[in-house]
Amino acid sequence: MSNSSEWKPNVTNIENAHQRIEHLIHETPVLTSQSLDDISGVQLFFKCENFQKAGAFKFRGATNAVLSLSEKDAQKGVLTHSSGNHAAALSLAARMRNIVAHIVMPRNAPAVKKAAVRSYGGRIYECEPTLTARETTAAEVQAKTGAILIHPYNNENIIAGQGTAALELLQKVSDLDMVLAPVGGGGLISGTAVCAKSLNPQIRVFGCEPENADDACRSFHAGKIIPVQNPDTIADGLRTSLGEKTFPLIQRFVDDILLVAEEEIVFAMRLIWERMKIIVEPSAAVPFAAVLRNGDMFRHKKVGLILSGGNVDVGHLPFS
Amino acid sequence: MSNSSEWKPNVTNIENAHQRIEHLIHETPVLTSQSLDDISGVQLFFKCENFQKAGAFKFRGATNAVLSLSEKDAQKGVLTHSSGNHAAALSLAARMRNIVAHIVMPRNAPAVKKAAVRSYGGRIYECEPTLTARETTAAEVQAKTGAILIHPYNNENIIAGQGTAALELLQKVSDLDMVLAPVGGGGLISGTAVCAKSLNPQIRVFGCEPENADDACRSFHAGKIIPVQNPDTIADGLRTSLGEKTFPLIQRFVDDILLVAEEEIVFAMRLIWERMKIIVEPSAAVPFAAVLRNGDMFRHKKVGLILSGGNVDVGHLPFS
Repeated sequence: MSNSSEWKPNVTNIENAHQRIEHLIHETPVLTSQSLDDISGVQLFFKCENFQKAGAFKFRGATNAVLSLSEKDAQKGVLTHSSGNHAAALSLAARMRNIVAHIVMPRNAPAVKKAAVRSYGGRIYECEPTLTARETTAAEVQAKTGAILIHPYNNENIIAGQGTAALELLQKVSDLDMVLAPVGGGGLISGTAVCAKSLNPQIRVFGCEPENADDACRSFHAGKIIPVQNPDTIADGLRTSLGEKTFPLIQRFVDDILLVAEEEIVFAMRLIWERMKIIVEPSAAVPFAAVLRNGDMFRHKKVGLILSGGNVDVGHLPFS
Repeated sequence: MSNSSEWKPNVTNIENAHQRIEHLIHETPVLTSQSLDDISGVQLFFKCENFQKAGAFKFRGATNAVLSLSEKDAQKGVLTHSSGNHAAALSLAARMRNIVAHIVMPRNAPAVKKAAVRSYGGRIYECEPTLTARETTAAEVQAKTGAILIHPYNNENIIAGQGTAALELLQKVSDLDMVLAPVGGGGLISGTAVCAKSLNPQIRVFGCEPENADDACRSFHAGKIIPVQNPDTIADGLRTSLGEKTFPLIQRFVDDILLVAEEEIVFAMRLIWERMKIIVEPSAAVPFAAVLRNGDMFRHKKVGLILSGGNVDVGHLPFS
């Protein structure tokens, strides 16, 4: 592997991001579960970004992006389109800098995620649930307001910020054999992979995604970005496709992309709820579902999993 | 107040219990939540016994009771009747000492709690959901097996063990103004009160229970035990009545009993789930419901709440 410092962002950017944001984020705990270790035959370390502010790792990247703006740019406000968690995170990060956040959201985003954006003071603009509609609406809002677009993943400050979760995980558990994170647009997995491979070139890094939204897997093996249109998966955080900035990092630093079925996601999510007594959203359960599906690969290894978020509408659960 | 060392158990018993069990229990975290502090206007410290082994504080008392048995008594096995969490806890504690646990359970106990008892190797005997039926069935099993009865709360070793949760809480946050715990049979609240008042006579201690199972409140104010029959509350851990060993401790060391309505329990439980991203059972949400109901009493105080357990059937939730 070539020196990872040639790539942007690299581990130095991630370490700088961590210094920039650490007074504003939660250093989330790394939990273990004897029960889930016994069930899986794997030594699991769960990095609990479901306990992060605004309920997901997205607050790391959003805060890094907002704090990286010049004073002049910050005064224009920020703008994004997002399936939900980035929207809430950016709203809260903007409020902490006392600037405006304009949020374009698909109209089918979970009600609980729209409510979160509102509670953090974000201004919502609804659109159709397609990438094209999101981008068009965002361009319109930007033309009207002059706000700075903070893309949910295709942005180096966002990727570096998301990588700080893996940085904290590896600072706490330095001898992991493998790290797994879910893949939507690729911000979390690319930041995770850059960080992990830079700190330990022997570590193996896997992105995990639903079979029903397998664009990362197909793109990874085809060597070019193959987007998905309107994927139907319960993992609402993983419906987006890879971007131009995340894909090359994934190609370079990720070992493989693992797929899981919808019922495997629900099963894994329920096990985490019942055994760990913590609330994770479907997207966050995808890496553990991949561990359960590919048991032999992980047996007796020390495996870190990033529990990406905990924003779920507890009034509408897939368990009953 | 008279010297608490006259009473049994006293804080010395609780400290001894802690030394006896600390290698087997989890030292559970004390969590805070800016969001719930803002909503309540109170500085809240949640002692997370939902993360305890077997999913509830009950493992503390059960382990203390099992480890306190002589070798000869231990070989006879242990026996109890319980609405669920004590049953699972005793089963697991017995298995850790490699002895048999006979468990009498009401047939309407949640399926998830029966499954937990079985998974820990406990032998279940079902009975009608009344105190009389429980005690009769337990006596029959005891006559047949010779097992030692470990009452879920009317037992000094159990009470001392339950008091270790408050001990850890106060070791971590020494300047609490108040401590709240739910009241079922009174094991948790009496152990909590003995511990807290002994370490800090100025601290105020409140038991919290459902209006629909208000035997502790009525008993406390009447000065004698007034049992409830078949109370109808979602807080399935709090359907039992006070016992002869817990009631005098409650009279002596508890400041008052606070009541909450069923819908207040569900509301408080949902807030804890949504804002803290942790799973607590209805009984565990009762103290926070009492804080929300009696806002003025607690405003700006440092209040410890014992989240008693997290054993809930996620396939049957009261939220939708």
